Amino acid sequence: MSQAKTTVLKIGGSVITDKNKELGVNMEAISRLADEILEANQRNLIIVHGGGSFGHPVAQEYAIKDGFKDKSQLLGFAETHHVMTVLNGIFMDALIWRGIPAVSIMPSSCMTTRNGRINYFGDTPIKQLLKMEFIPVLYGDAVFDTELGFTILSGDQLVAFLATQFSAKNIVIGVDVDGLYDTDPKTDAKAKMFDRLTLNELNKICGQLGGSNACDVTGGMRNKIAEIIPAVEKGIPVFIVNATKPKYVYKALKGENVKGTLIEKE
Amino acid sequence: MSQAKTTVLKIGGSVITDKNKELGVNMEAISRLADEILEANQRNLIIVHGGGSFGHPVAQEYAIKDGFKDKSQLLGFAETHHVMTVLNGIFMDALIWRGIPAVSIMPSSCMTTRNGRINYFGDTPIKQLLKMEFIPVLYGDAVFDTELGFTILSGDQLVAFLATQFSAKNIVIGVDVDGLYDTDPKTDAKAKMFDRLTLNELNKICGQLGGSNACDVTGGMRNKIAEIIPAVEKGIPVFIVNATKPKYVYKALKGENVKGTLIEKE
Repeated sequence: MSQAKTTVLKIGGSVITDKNKELGVNMEAISRLADEILEANQRNLIIVHGGGSFGHPVAQEYAIKDGFKDKSQLLGFAETHHVMTVLNGIFMDALIWRGIPAVSIMPSSCMTTRNGRINYFGDTPIKQLLKMEFIPVLYGDAVFDTELGFTILSGDQLVAFLATQFSAKNIVIGVDVDGLYDTDPKTDAKAKMFDRLTLNELNKICGQLGGSNACDVTGGMRNKIAEIIPAVEKGIPVFIVNATKPKYVYKALKGENVKGTLIEKE
Repeated sequence: MSQAKTTVLKIGGSVITDKNKELGVNMEAISRLADEILEANQRNLIIVHGGGSFGHPVAQEYAIKDGFKDKSQLLGFAETHHVMTVLNGIFMDALIWRGIPAVSIMPSSCMTTRNGRINYFGDTPIKQLLKMEFIPVLYGDAVFDTELGFTILSGDQLVAFLATQFSAKNIVIGVDVDGLYDTDPKTDAKAKMFDRLTLNELNKICGQLGGSNACDVTGGMRNKIAEIIPAVEKGIPVFIVNATKPKYVYKALKGENVKGTLIEKE
């Protein structure tokens, strides 16, 4: 393992796909973000991206997240996994063509879950990859589950898991809003954004100390927050930033001043 | 693990790519082979494909097989890995669109090598996959090597490894010639094809009992034979068949009579 500590960067599926169109890619966003990642020139970076309009529709159609119920789902699992590799391939193209030594890691090939939570991670390849200063790129994936047969492993669970596993110095989460709000900024013009929250403050907002599943911050953020809290608890700060706005991810990676929500342990 | 024993099918890179054109795909061959695999309806199948004009040119340009020498190779490794995932994606498309529940497994995500030989295989995901009767599809890949930094893992090494690991009942190797010849059939019209060889006979032909690296059968077959001999030694028969000819792979999978070379232990 290299000595410099790692940053885990999440790029939301909603940022790099077109949510109005199944299998719609937002190439402009992918190209711009690849430019920003190149320019930030961050060493010890792990990238995770979501599925957006690639992974979600087919996964929902076949209820992949709920696990194996009957054989008709097998093709749905295969399709969900496949379309995620296609989206990942487009993202990898953008990185590699810019000269970024990025290497995809397929979560379903090296991880399994038990009732939806990662219970196996064969980390020998990724450790060697990080040692050699490649940039691993993972993604939300259809994975095998030792109880359910299969399920969906979200990019957000991956982010917190990898940050903890590799003792990351920080997490940057690129989403399609400016940060974490008290109500949904997409539907409520009076929504108030938090610039900084401690774990205590976040738990108060979420209404239940520790048990973050009850957290009711909105704007598609509830599950995301529930997933990242364990990393914050281990002392890894999380910065939520708008990845649809030019240079926000770049500035977050560089540690420059930019609008967003910082969540810290204390 | 299912009870029915597994067949490992190798599809040569030369069959599914156009060797005269870097990144040239032979879509006609891919579509036909996907049809044959669908029609054969083989349970407990593991598929491995090679790289052909996808993997080889960029791997050679950056000398990836020889391992890490300097930082200029990092992008070459990333590219080699990436183009293999692209070829695999095209192959997966063809299988899944036909309704075959095929799931790609990325070798570099779950295996490492030591001096070019597989020394780590995190097999938890693929075991679950086989248990659920999905068809795993692997491929020759740029992988991490604990001594060399990185190297190339050939599809042929993968085939023998997986067949041994999962106690396969047989191996079918689809190539671009009719079988194993005493000289190169592409340059020597008098080349004589073997219908069946025992390990003893093969070793005699190769001139050196056991030490199959010295084997000088030609036609691009030398390394292939050297890689599969360990599986034959374990009692797994290998059938080499022409995958460029319609229905040959289908017949080989079904156990029907078709031209080719059978290699058996005794």
